[in-house]
Amino acid sequence: MKVACKIWLDHNGKAFGEGPYELLKRVEKTNSLHEAAHQMGMSYSKAWCLIRTLEERLGFILLERKVGGTSGGGSQLTPEARNLMKHYGRFHKDVKEALEKIYLKHFGSKGRKTWK
Amino acid sequence: MKVACKIWLDHNGKAFGEGPYELLKRVEKTNSLHEAAHQMGMSYSKAWCLIRTLEERLGFILLERKVGGTSGGGSQLTPEARNLMKHYGRFHKDVKEALEKIYLKHFGSKGRKTWK
Repeated sequence: MKVACKIWLDHNGKAFGEGPYELLKRVEKTNSLHEAAHQMGMSYSKAWCLIRTLEERLGFILLERKVGGTSGGGSQLTPEARNLMKHYGRFHKDVKEALEKIYLKHFGSKGRKTWK
Repeated sequence: MKVACKIWLDHNGKAFGEGPYELLKRVEKTNSLHEAAHQMGMSYSKAWCLIRTLEERLGFILLERKVGGTSGGGSQLTPEARNLMKHYGRFHKDVKEALEKIYLKHFGSKGRKTWK
């Protein structure tokens, strides 16, 4: 037995969580929403809609889109997105650690097998 | 902005979480899975299937079913179910408190509005 969780920031709906974090991490590395979506087995249009929905809920832009140019365009994280990523990354790490501790406190170190 | 989460115990799939906890709490009060399911807007057959799935994953019985009799039968929590409920209730309370603290630490007391 183990503990599992989904955690997200909520602002008029799901505004940011693990999936978007992972997607933006990949955009940061590849400078491409297309490539990031592909790596996660997600269609480009789905990824694009997700980003737009999150931007609306968060109230700021996550990606700057560059069209054309010698490099063929691409996507880059805005300063606000980088800041959110930094905070969310630390927040998520702290939550995971706390959750594991609390689980062990209540359900024992090897996972409780009997309940009598 | 606020933090939201879903937390569950996992053992070969979702083995216990907030929904089942709520359902069993209502069975405890009403001595009836039928009534508990009704209160939660769930069909009896869905509630029954849920309980059976959880029992398989947990490896023990959650409900003792009494058929007929002068009281018309009903359902009661097993001692193992009561024990699980007790631990889960405390676990969940601790998790909620910790999550709120960690959220405030990283995102500020009134919910961060700007990210610059």
